Amino acid sequence: MFDLANQLRADGGGPVHDLSLGNPSLEPPEVWRRAVLDLLQTEPPGMHRYMTSAGFPEVREFLAERESARYGLELSAQDVTMTVGAAGGLNVIFNALVDPSDEIVVPAPYFSEYEHYCENVGAALVPVATTLDFQLDPTAIDAAIGPKCRVVMLNSPNNPSGAIYSHDALVELAGVLERSNRTRTKPIVVVEDAPYRDLVHDGTDAPSILQHYPHSVLVTSHSKDLGLAGERIGYVVVSPQLFGRDFVNRAAAFCNRVLGFVNAPALMQRILPIVLADPMGRVDVTVYARRCRTMAEGLRALGFEIPVPRAGFFLFPRLPDRLRTTDGGDIALAQRLVEERTIVVPGTAFGGPGHLRLSMATSEEAVASALAAFTKVCAEV
Amino acid sequence: MFDLANQLRADGGGPVHDLSLGNPSLEPPEVWRRAVLDLLQTEPPGMHRYMTSAGFPEVREFLAERESARYGLELSAQDVTMTVGAAGGLNVIFNALVDPSDEIVVPAPYFSEYEHYCENVGAALVPVATTLDFQLDPTAIDAAIGPKCRVVMLNSPNNPSGAIYSHDALVELAGVLERSNRTRTKPIVVVEDAPYRDLVHDGTDAPSILQHYPHSVLVTSHSKDLGLAGERIGYVVVSPQLFGRDFVNRAAAFCNRVLGFVNAPALMQRILPIVLADPMGRVDVTVYARRCRTMAEGLRALGFEIPVPRAGFFLFPRLPDRLRTTDGGDIALAQRLVEERTIVVPGTAFGGPGHLRLSMATSEEAVASALAAFTKVCAEV
Repeated sequence: MFDLANQLRADGGGPVHDLSLGNPSLEPPEVWRRAVLDLLQTEPPGMHRYMTSAGFPEVREFLAERESARYGLELSAQDVTMTVGAAGGLNVIFNALVDPSDEIVVPAPYFSEYEHYCENVGAALVPVATTLDFQLDPTAIDAAIGPKCRVVMLNSPNNPSGAIYSHDALVELAGVLERSNRTRTKPIVVVEDAPYRDLVHDGTDAPSILQHYPHSVLVTSHSKDLGLAGERIGYVVVSPQLFGRDFVNRAAAFCNRVLGFVNAPALMQRILPIVLADPMGRVDVTVYARRCRTMAEGLRALGFEIPVPRAGFFLFPRLPDRLRTTDGGDIALAQRLVEERTIVVPGTAFGGPGHLRLSMATSEEAVASALAAFTKVCAEV
Repeated sequence: MFDLANQLRADGGGPVHDLSLGNPSLEPPEVWRRAVLDLLQTEPPGMHRYMTSAGFPEVREFLAERESARYGLELSAQDVTMTVGAAGGLNVIFNALVDPSDEIVVPAPYFSEYEHYCENVGAALVPVATTLDFQLDPTAIDAAIGPKCRVVMLNSPNNPSGAIYSHDALVELAGVLERSNRTRTKPIVVVEDAPYRDLVHDGTDAPSILQHYPHSVLVTSHSKDLGLAGERIGYVVVSPQLFGRDFVNRAAAFCNRVLGFVNAPALMQRILPIVLADPMGRVDVTVYARRCRTMAEGLRALGFEIPVPRAGFFLFPRLPDRLRTTDGGDIALAQRLVEERTIVVPGTAFGGPGHLRLSMATSEEAVASALAAFTKVCAEV
């Protein structure tokens, strides 16, 4: 997508309206910049060396307390492994938990990179449908769980749909899993990928499976809420109630090391306790929320179906019936939009054919121009 | 090793002389610190977002020119992939090149993590003996290369031995490989892991296989020469003459992404063209060199055999005959030294039983105290 956008930009045909990338357009907060400057001018020696693979103990301690308060758990520092972003964290925890030929059940639509992460550990990704407004469907998950299921993976708030899985659906899912565990030697683990949890548009907390199911692991990053995607800082939090907790924590640190991550970038680790303790230590989510509303309203007027976006900066509109006639409807529409210098991703790439994924991590101008392109293209059909 | 050292430190029994870790004890140069401070106060927006997986084009362009001049090649930016340290780079290039059940031939002694990196791609590590002073033995490599050999991996300057593979040995190895390639569909690739190349004690350049063999890949980092091990900045350089060059470059960027590294930390990428262009942008290797000489002389006086260390901060002394009587001699000696609060790694861990690995990335005090511990322990036998 980077390359397609760069090609278009190079052809001299005017601006490109790129809604393809989940690349935070908001800058890291000023608090972050000041904290880095302060640290670099006052730190003692030894702060840029290797540390133990799981990360600086004082940073993990801070995060354990913060996550404990958030989810009502009693986490200790050993339950937190600092990782190279959430992508690093997911690969670390999959390597720690999953054996080849295990199955990983994932509600669709889902972040397309999950297919690679499953493949990296030789596991099969088993997609499960969500409801029409992209809400979790515990009954469908129940039906999809076979004897080889090792992990159920949730991504809430969701990329690409912007949905937040509800408290009730999570409680029901926990019940489904507890029942399924009765006939298993090892309980199913829920891995919750939550890098958008601090980008809920109305500022509330997204419910988490950690509050309802003991065998849970949270993976998150500050790529989006601090605008630090390129700096690769994230972490894995293992529930203290998880079956084999100590072993999993040790395995996560080991995998962090031997997969070649070695440790999360040192300076970005040390910055977290300073920035996260500051109320201004977060990007202004209202910017993303406003763009989401503008685009959603514009697309609805063109006949797209689209639930009210609740978090993050993605929209996943369902094509109007007349454009969705064939399976390749989303791919054809995305290709037609490229001719209008507008880049979006076909929903097929996210296990959601008949949809498009639009990122609002862009600019007001790109949103307006893209809407104009949609209007033109929709008028042709 | 971190944990053992911390346990010892916690017991109240006095200082611990930790020679186990290759953790740079010298601070990043002042040039680096100033460059980070300047960048953060003057940079345009967008510098901490994702960039294309291979890294910032201008950084890769700078490194391509620098490496071209160093090795007499014509590299372009596309031949450089920025990685999460050399460990990230090795895992990326192995995933790009190696199929399960391939063989990776590695001269011993070798960095023990290589065993995991080979395992990560399902390949077998085939160790090959070096000469008594740890010099490359092309004839032994020739004999170790079977039909499944995909990669020969070199680490020069070497961890753990401090040896620099000679120009003549590299030329001879290139000849061996060219002959072997005549009966192969794909040529054998040499992966040269070179994070110590700018820590040669006399300040000269270490010879590189890139100068002698077309199918070569360099992997390096600035963990040691800039003291940035915890910040995870490295890169992969693919020779422009490598068979399938374009495919390998694209595969490296793809693997960087899907293995969960995504990209090398953005700020540390951008710092490189500034710091590496400055003659003061390097740690003072004479500090490590002096400690190496002191320790080598002290150990020789106790009956250890040890070639003159030429680069980096490791020593790999061969135990005196009376201590090497059994296979577990190095393990027993390392255990005995722990009782003297001195931590070293048995050579067995590096494919070199009968030796110890000692890191001089420590302090003058630790070197002196460790020598005293060696003297005491050796007097007992």
